[in-house]
Amino acid sequence: MKTTGRLIALSLAGAALGAPGGAAAQALKDVRTPDTPLILKSQGSFYVGGEKAQQTQVQIGLGPAGHVTVNQMYVRFMVPQGGDGNVPVVMVHGATLTGKSYETTPDGRMGWDEYFVRRGHPVYVPDQVGRGRSGFNQAPFNDVRAGAVTPNTIPGFIRFSDEVSWPNFRFGSAPNAPYADTQFPVAAMDELSKQGVPDIRVGGAGQPNPIHRALSDLAGQLNGAVLLGHSQSGPFPLFSALLDPKAAKGLVLVEPGFCPPLNDEQIRTLAGIPILVVFGDHRATWTGMGDTTVKFWQRSFESCQALIGRVNAAGGKAEMLDPVARGIRGNSHMIMQDRNHLQIADFILQWIDERVARRRGASR
Amino acid sequence: MKTTGRLIALSLAGAALGAPGGAAAQALKDVRTPDTPLILKSQGSFYVGGEKAQQTQVQIGLGPAGHVTVNQMYVRFMVPQGGDGNVPVVMVHGATLTGKSYETTPDGRMGWDEYFVRRGHPVYVPDQVGRGRSGFNQAPFNDVRAGAVTPNTIPGFIRFSDEVSWPNFRFGSAPNAPYADTQFPVAAMDELSKQGVPDIRVGGAGQPNPIHRALSDLAGQLNGAVLLGHSQSGPFPLFSALLDPKAAKGLVLVEPGFCPPLNDEQIRTLAGIPILVVFGDHRATWTGMGDTTVKFWQRSFESCQALIGRVNAAGGKAEMLDPVARGIRGNSHMIMQDRNHLQIADFILQWIDERVARRRGASR
Repeated sequence: MKTTGRLIALSLAGAALGAPGGAAAQALKDVRTPDTPLILKSQGSFYVGGEKAQQTQVQIGLGPAGHVTVNQMYVRFMVPQGGDGNVPVVMVHGATLTGKSYETTPDGRMGWDEYFVRRGHPVYVPDQVGRGRSGFNQAPFNDVRAGAVTPNTIPGFIRFSDEVSWPNFRFGSAPNAPYADTQFPVAAMDELSKQGVPDIRVGGAGQPNPIHRALSDLAGQLNGAVLLGHSQSGPFPLFSALLDPKAAKGLVLVEPGFCPPLNDEQIRTLAGIPILVVFGDHRATWTGMGDTTVKFWQRSFESCQALIGRVNAAGGKAEMLDPVARGIRGNSHMIMQDRNHLQIADFILQWIDERVARRRGASR
Repeated sequence: MKTTGRLIALSLAGAALGAPGGAAAQALKDVRTPDTPLILKSQGSFYVGGEKAQQTQVQIGLGPAGHVTVNQMYVRFMVPQGGDGNVPVVMVHGATLTGKSYETTPDGRMGWDEYFVRRGHPVYVPDQVGRGRSGFNQAPFNDVRAGAVTPNTIPGFIRFSDEVSWPNFRFGSAPNAPYADTQFPVAAMDELSKQGVPDIRVGGAGQPNPIHRALSDLAGQLNGAVLLGHSQSGPFPLFSALLDPKAAKGLVLVEPGFCPPLNDEQIRTLAGIPILVVFGDHRATWTGMGDTTVKFWQRSFESCQALIGRVNAAGGKAEMLDPVARGIRGNSHMIMQDRNHLQIADFILQWIDERVARRRGASR
């Protein structure tokens, strides 16, 4: 195959990063079929939020000036037959990724989305505002292309290289050097690489991210939901809960990039909502980026321990799920794709049963 | 809600384009639940194709230089219980859209994806290479932002404004002026607007679009499939079939932007494959863009009639599904979202039964 990129160079060295290139076409063949059918009351997709933006002919790039919609959030859902009385779970993905994170794993196993449905929960999987099927605002890029504004005014896109993913997602200390106990299916590393999309970090420049409101709106429309975030979106459940505490029935922070410093009033609000933080193994390592002495994920872990302490001191019910403390080793940052991902899911499901709402009519 | 765009202006005039802004949050409430459960043998997602690209630190925007994957194609699938012996159907979306086109309609009705599954077919819905969950190559944009190359080297994004969608998708002669007989649920126009994403027209500058190969690869991996394209992707089934004629069991061109001029050898190859072209009503109208005297869709229709004639003259089985000729009026360009979209789907399903392969074990 040929590359169509004008400014990139194809490299056969890619074959050294995980499975050989020839294995790429095996993705469909590797998808496993469950032993029992999945029985859904309903499935589909819809959008939450969004605003009209008036754009110029140059900004739209097709036809005269007019209006488009920006800042909407795409959501795909599955409701299990007999499970619509159970608390819905909203699963949000991390940086440079999409809702695909929770679907079929890179090596073809059932994703958390289907597993939670099979355990009785309606599941809602968004694409973050500005990514995937939620789209983004192309106007600044077309303005720069036309010479209407200076190039440095466009947002910068980020991507995780394969070389960064290895240490940052804590599959191993370096590319192709997996930890002996890693739970990530590293032979499928090339499939994870395909999940990457450009990320302009909506709201990343100090502005509120519209997804906080979209998530709290979604939880409200669902008459209450468990909000689960991962990595970049790990703190989003907290921010959304602060916008509408009644709609947030439970907050699950999976490998959050950080737990934010909150004021005492915010802590008191969160003390009314069950909170679970989940971290994998090998936290005291570097990310493959920046200062090698900074243990980014250990620092995140500690910031969340501090949050848990403050919430509980205010009368709340916050807890840490640390598989290592249970003798389970080798979990990665992409814990929803790890080989023992259903074991971790079971811990979360048990926590929902005990802290949020016990499932009724669960089907498997 | 606030807009985060720096170069756009929010306009309350948006409320004049379809439903009032306040109705936007009603999307989930409007989603209808089917009368009977959906029973799936399997569902999930995977990628087809993709190549490693070596990128600089500036191009990646996060961490040092390294490799990312580009030109991969995301595919979501559902296989009905008892239907895995039936011919799979691959449904590709049009310009500035994603696979969402085939999911729940803007007004909350079942999408073609689920309907075809309920009628017994495994269904595969990609996001075109360079859009949605398939991502795109961000390197040129980051290079321009850094001043490394000149601004006019980046691809231009396109979007359909609401003002263009009205005439171009043939909902009405002008914004908020629906045809009296329109089949499109125009009250949900704002929900369709949310489906828009920036489109860099991969392969649009005279280079082969990698999705042609990805689709033929997917059809091959499925041991044969019906390839269905829409609008921009309307001709893709033809191009993919020419790459691997044996894997293309049937080609459905829904409202293709054009039927391409092919050489006699290509026509002879296509003569071995059943072909169905589908067009809606109100074709002899302008698009809201460019020359008002050009009847774009009528021209597309005629180019496909010409193709059908040539294929059949070479011994093939190509035909036009024109609902107007059957007395069905008012179908739009977004025919898979029209109010009578299941009636149109039934015509296509009947054609698959008669021309491609009769369904076994169909479930409803």
